[in-house]
Amino acid sequence: MSYGTCFPLWRAGAPDWDAYVRAPFLGGLADGSLPRRAFLTYLSQDYLFLIHFARAWSLAVTKAGSLPEMRACSATVHALLETETRLHVELCGRAGITEGDLAATLEAPQNLAYTRYVLEAGYSGDFLDLLAALAPCVLGYGEIGARLLSEPHDPAYAEWIETYGGADYQALCHDTAALIDGAVASRLGPQAPALPRWRQLQDRFSTATRLEAAFWTLAG
Amino acid sequence: MSYGTCFPLWRAGAPDWDAYVRAPFLGGLADGSLPRRAFLTYLSQDYLFLIHFARAWSLAVTKAGSLPEMRACSATVHALLETETRLHVELCGRAGITEGDLAATLEAPQNLAYTRYVLEAGYSGDFLDLLAALAPCVLGYGEIGARLLSEPHDPAYAEWIETYGGADYQALCHDTAALIDGAVASRLGPQAPALPRWRQLQDRFSTATRLEAAFWTLAG
Amino acid sequence: MSYGTCFPLWRAGAPDWDAYVRAPFLGGLADGSLPRRAFLTYLSQDYLFLIHFARAWSLAVTKAGSLPEMRACSATVHALLETETRLHVELCGRAGITEGDLAATLEAPQNLAYTRYVLEAGYSGDFLDLLAALAPCVLGYGEIGARLLSEPHDPAYAEWIETYGGADYQALCHDTAALIDGAVASRLGPQAPALPRWRQLQDRFSTATRLEAAFWTLAG
Amino acid sequence: MSYGTCFPLWRAGAPDWDAYVRAPFLGGLADGSLPRRAFLTYLSQDYLFLIHFARAWSLAVTKAGSLPEMRACSATVHALLETETRLHVELCGRAGITEGDLAATLEAPQNLAYTRYVLEAGYSGDFLDLLAALAPCVLGYGEIGARLLSEPHDPAYAEWIETYGGADYQALCHDTAALIDGAVASRLGPQAPALPRWRQLQDRFSTATRLEAAFWTLAG
Repeated sequence: MSYGTCFPLWRAGAPDWDAYVRAPFLGGLADGSLPRRAFLTYLSQDYLFLIHFARAWSLAVTKAGSLPEMRACSATVHALLETETRLHVELCGRAGITEGDLAATLEAPQNLAYTRYVLEAGYSGDFLDLLAALAPCVLGYGEIGARLLSEPHDPAYAEWIETYGGADYQALCHDTAALIDGAVASRLGPQAPALPRWRQLQDRFSTATRLEAAFWTLAG
Repeated sequence: MSYGTCFPLWRAGAPDWDAYVRAPFLGGLADGSLPRRAFLTYLSQDYLFLIHFARAWSLAVTKAGSLPEMRACSATVHALLETETRLHVELCGRAGITEGDLAATLEAPQNLAYTRYVLEAGYSGDFLDLLAALAPCVLGYGEIGARLLSEPHDPAYAEWIETYGGADYQALCHDTAALIDGAVASRLGPQAPALPRWRQLQDRFSTATRLEAAFWTLAG
Repeated sequence: MSYGTCFPLWRAGAPDWDAYVRAPFLGGLADGSLPRRAFLTYLSQDYLFLIHFARAWSLAVTKAGSLPEMRACSATVHALLETETRLHVELCGRAGITEGDLAATLEAPQNLAYTRYVLEAGYSGDFLDLLAALAPCVLGYGEIGARLLSEPHDPAYAEWIETYGGADYQALCHDTAALIDGAVASRLGPQAPALPRWRQLQDRFSTATRLEAAFWTLAG
Repeated sequence: MSYGTCFPLWRAGAPDWDAYVRAPFLGGLADGSLPRRAFLTYLSQDYLFLIHFARAWSLAVTKAGSLPEMRACSATVHALLETETRLHVELCGRAGITEGDLAATLEAPQNLAYTRYVLEAGYSGDFLDLLAALAPCVLGYGEIGARLLSEPHDPAYAEWIETYGGADYQALCHDTAALIDGAVASRLGPQAPALPRWRQLQDRFSTATRLEAAFWTLAG
């Protein structure tokens, strides 16, 4: 699985990448053995996560260096606020969890850790720090979705698998990878991986990956 | 002219409000005496302004306290990046000013002062500080547009007057005023104007108004 | 134990306060049963914590509203960077842990969660949000130190207990409480606890308390 | 005059450097022809400037990448808040301007433009963006002070000239230049001037220089 140029390098340098994209939780999604209750716990936390994720992509608009960068990030904010959060509300609604329930859910420590890490990376660093911290989520879900979709999977969670493995989400992944590659090239030039700055970005990516891996454990 | 509840109070407390909404530049727009060259200088600077303004509204998404607040601010970002900046490019294009020319324009000091004041108010303060600093621009243009449209005006700049005096922009003003009133009420309660915090918000609004008034002078 | 006016109210409203100030880890500090190795793990993480804590107090200088507020926060930054971090280096050094070891320590998830929550509260909110998120650490350690010092305790960790229970740290707690009370009064006025804003500050305080309680568990 | 390695390159690339360090205002300081009233207007605005400058250096502590970087920036905050602001209060006090008068002074547009530009560069960019925006002030005053001190000058403003030309301030300039050079090297490596990032830092430096040049004009 490959999205762009920077991501495969960062992915290879993140010790927890496999723990993230091959978590037991995902095995349970694929073979249908994941208890519905655990899935709904995950979904409720993911709803809160999406809100902070939209906040982080909005911060990326603020910190971008050009109109095309701003427009790319803004399109993601729009998709998160107008489509993805509404999908979660609908999915949860089918299980009797209302939007009010979702908004009143107590954020799990793993959720707090990951979302605030990304936002703080963005505030304290620059546009690249923020993208490096956002990348494991966007592109990791793309990698997970594509793999699960290409393998035999139980119908129980097929909708989730088809969302992230499907053409729309895969296109978003390629756009995001292009945004990252362009942003890195227009700031650090063609020798970016040889700069000390690269190691700092790798560290952002690796820590975010570690926190993504932990996120799967919140459903117990 | 009245938008919501907070704005009329802040407006009444801003010493430079009339200097802003009754600037000589606007008289020249109304009677058509404003030299085309001055208008194009203004428009080029306003293009750069819109970019920073979109950045500030994106920061508002990040600093918002609820999904409806986030969605309201994000809609403004979307309109700025997808519609208003493109209109400026088109208007300038008719006068032979390319998008490349616009992007290469040196920011006038009045432009730097105003945009950075708003962004810094947002970063250093909270959602309310940011809204108070954004309000004079959004709602002042609404007030100016509505007034000029209701009075006899020369066709020379009628397009500009109709944009800001027109129904779409006026609706945006009422939405923004509702966003502000709701944000103040849900944080400071019904006695907001009696709190010391109110004076700080008034100060944000008054300083932004002063910088808006100065903005008209950049076209010489 | 009482520091100022706001803190006792926030403390009473934080569901995890007792879990924080009466954690098993603290029992082990008091009776000396805490394994040295667990203490050193805690101390190494606390060193990383102090660095982010100093960053957060510096952000408070940036977000303060007056010179006295700036000076109060800056004094804390100075104490953290020039005294407290050096004490940790010295304490760890006695156990053979070098400053290089400390800097290379992988941040525990509990540490990431807490420090980034505080910093992000500061960036996304205002001075009060930041103070409400900082308060549980500063004042909770004061309460813990004062209590443990007043009770019989084993000499094993007496130095730690004397640091936080001692006169210097207790004076810092009273100064911090005065800073908080003054900051709240000069923004929200005398009826602050009746405002919706108060609930938001309570929520910052409660979440930070929850993350402080979890911090004790990182030493296993 | 030379401080470190990056500064001379940025200085050479800033079109307004001479307008800044050879402003008419400075000629009037050197030969004593500057009216006292203009000097006091400058000093009052500079007092407000110092407060925002201390806020910006505190933000640098928050955005720094290591303890030594944090300590270097924190030392500057400390000097600004505990020494330089008090000196301005004393100097103004001799002329009958009280600390209350200073705090109530309306910020000039040139002051708003410069201070908010620097702070926003820091918030939206990273540590390097902030340092590049701070450098013209710190090091430009060093260059101005050293030059005026080495030339014949009237006693009228000798105190000001001796402050910035004197050994203490010159040492601070060399420390700041070393901080900048180290920060650039540890992020962008030895080929920093060849990277696109360098042009962005140059742009920060050049814009801040332009706003510094304009600052001299506020005293009329």
